[in-house]
Amino acid sequence: MKWTWVLVAVLLSFGGQSLAKESLDFPEYDGKDRVHNLNAKNYKSVMRKYDVMVVYYHDHPGSSRVAQRQFETEELALERAAQVLDEFEDEDIGVGLIDAKLDKVVAKKLGLEESDSIFIITDDEVIEYDGELEADTLVEFIYDVLEDPVEIIDNSRELKGFESIEEDIKLVGYFKSHKSEHFEAFADAAEEFHPHIKFFATFNPKVAKALELKLNEVDFYESFIENPLVIPGKPYSEKELVKFIENNDRPTLRKLKPSNMYEIWDDDVGGEHIVAFAEEADIDGFEFLHKLKQVAEDNTENPNLSILWIDPDDFPLLLPHWEKTFGIDLSHPQIGVIEADDADSVWMDIDNGEDLPSVDELEEWLEDVLSSLVLMRMRSIQNTPLPFGEGHVVRLWLVNKC
Amino acid sequence: MKWTWVLVAVLLSFGGQSLAKESLDFPEYDGKDRVHNLNAKNYKSVMRKYDVMVVYYHDHPGSSRVAQRQFETEELALERAAQVLDEFEDEDIGVGLIDAKLDKVVAKKLGLEESDSIFIITDDEVIEYDGELEADTLVEFIYDVLEDPVEIIDNSRELKGFESIEEDIKLVGYFKSHKSEHFEAFADAAEEFHPHIKFFATFNPKVAKALELKLNEVDFYESFIENPLVIPGKPYSEKELVKFIENNDRPTLRKLKPSNMYEIWDDDVGGEHIVAFAEEADIDGFEFLHKLKQVAEDNTENPNLSILWIDPDDFPLLLPHWEKTFGIDLSHPQIGVIEADDADSVWMDIDNGEDLPSVDELEEWLEDVLSSLVLMRMRSIQNTPLPFGEGHVVRLWLVNKC
Repeated sequence: MKWTWVLVAVLLSFGGQSLAKESLDFPEYDGKDRVHNLNAKNYKSVMRKYDVMVVYYHDHPGSSRVAQRQFETEELALERAAQVLDEFEDEDIGVGLIDAKLDKVVAKKLGLEESDSIFIITDDEVIEYDGELEADTLVEFIYDVLEDPVEIIDNSRELKGFESIEEDIKLVGYFKSHKSEHFEAFADAAEEFHPHIKFFATFNPKVAKALELKLNEVDFYESFIENPLVIPGKPYSEKELVKFIENNDRPTLRKLKPSNMYEIWDDDVGGEHIVAFAEEADIDGFEFLHKLKQVAEDNTENPNLSILWIDPDDFPLLLPHWEKTFGIDLSHPQIGVIEADDADSVWMDIDNGEDLPSVDELEEWLEDVLSSLVLMRMRSIQNTPLPFGEGHVVRLWLVNKC
Repeated sequence: MKWTWVLVAVLLSFGGQSLAKESLDFPEYDGKDRVHNLNAKNYKSVMRKYDVMVVYYHDHPGSSRVAQRQFETEELALERAAQVLDEFEDEDIGVGLIDAKLDKVVAKKLGLEESDSIFIITDDEVIEYDGELEADTLVEFIYDVLEDPVEIIDNSRELKGFESIEEDIKLVGYFKSHKSEHFEAFADAAEEFHPHIKFFATFNPKVAKALELKLNEVDFYESFIENPLVIPGKPYSEKELVKFIENNDRPTLRKLKPSNMYEIWDDDVGGEHIVAFAEEADIDGFEFLHKLKQVAEDNTENPNLSILWIDPDDFPLLLPHWEKTFGIDLSHPQIGVIEADDADSVWMDIDNGEDLPSVDELEEWLEDVLSSLVLMRMRSIQNTPLPFGEGHVVRLWLVNKC
């Protein structure tokens, strides 16, 4: 690579002078309507124009002022996304609305089942977006969808990048080449989970050796867990891989992200979530998160334990709402149990971050929480009357539940 | 800490049943107008109602449809921020608008100089927000403003959290106690730069020893540089600290964030920015960033070198715009020189991420770029005619500039 200042000079002088001061400005919303209202008459012709269609299958907006303004806000977010996607050069991406009251038929034809969701429809597949309806989060998710479902690790430096990924579930397989039928099965499985789960492959024996992978073997990494599970029974069919992943897709510790928040929230364990709030950029939060990771490493075999880590920095607009709903102070780390349905919650007594609980104390607390949750669930299922003397509180709890 | 499942049971059963399914829902925009139009008549009485006032001192909106809709979009972002801040329990925070054409007088009285900016006005100070006008980014910045300007490191575990902060400029001082006059000078200096620069202090001799800090000594850490500078001449006055920081506030490598993007962009070096795009969550991007950090470590003494790292993931709405403006593919790492004013740019020839440049190649390229930039600037200042034979390109460049 040879570089001379002459090259710099020539390019600095001849570049597009017309782009004055534009480099860092956010594209202002230009007011042009790009979002299509899809209905039985137009949906085929509209969708033919695009490589990828982003469809918001929404409930029919209510007539109150609040409902109307809320829907306008959502439409505006989609218009901004559509404007940005309009500039995207690799693919033609369109954005459309389907009203669940007026055009259910269209949704059904497109295979969209649940309303109040966004779907990204490509040639091959329909991917549901179950995150917040904000232009930036949605657009970033679409970029991820457009990327190749399997990323190839070519060398030891890229391997470091792979190792640095800890927030997502990831898989890595070692195959002979792109043409291997076993790689094809792996890539087909990747498509089923893309972009929520990250798939990597290598064709390089050195990289495979560093990963301790045998040919056609695939390792499965839980989020935040250093040591992978070797998926048994290589070589695998697509079906076997899909089954294994489905059986292991709820990690011991996972992070809530704006792009998957509703999906994760729906995936509760028996109606409850164990939630830990920790701000990674804060020194207390960093320490607490470090301990949570140790707890996860220690308890990765426990199928009943799944801790949801929320970094308040990722959800600034929800922070006051959460502090109010849960009655906690989110300027310090917190861990608690939340009922997914009604937001009832109980929180560990953490002393203002001055004296954070140790890993052992966290594990003891979690054990108590889990055993009481299991007991409550059992009773709730069996619906057996409680013997006297077992405690007023549980009786009240049962009265409440049954 | 003693925990029993009874406690969990009682809280799960008695919590607020009225909060059904509300825990994770984003507060929908309720359509209530909370943003005040501040003018000479009302501004005093409005501002008296709040502990903190967020003021958007905006240019008078144009009359075109595009300008009107753009301003409505900005107002909506502020309304959403105001609604969230309304729920915030620690402080009363208000949001207002000042029109630069109609109410310049009010802005002047409040000490706001530059229009088209947002100011956060507290009892003691006025802090300018020079980031993107989005509800979430703005609200998060306000939370940071409300935090204590100096964070205290109490123990070795918190020290790890401190060490993990690499994206920001940070300072840490060792003082006898909160009451020390030298700590007070440090805290006063912190207020001048809060929340853009992070200030830490410790009163714990063990922590100080681990940091190799003497009493009343302050260390200054450039972003992404492991080893600090010891600020000379302890103990320091507030003025001395401020002066040192102002002389060192442009690091060799720094990250562009949505909350400071316009501020950083204005801080160019002689009209140009050296910009590196690298997606940290991507394996190529991670590798490239790692190399940039090494370049920064090697060249931290060079006052002419300041690389601006942009993670495309932080700016999804700008990605297609940048790809178009700069003519580059941002699915791979890129490094180049951009003129801050007119967005002319030149980019290193990186081979699609397959073969990223080595640290040496990066340094060689940067050296060439810097020397040509320095030469061009010198000529531009001296305005001397170029001798023949020194190259057509530089002559053209000068013709363009002069």
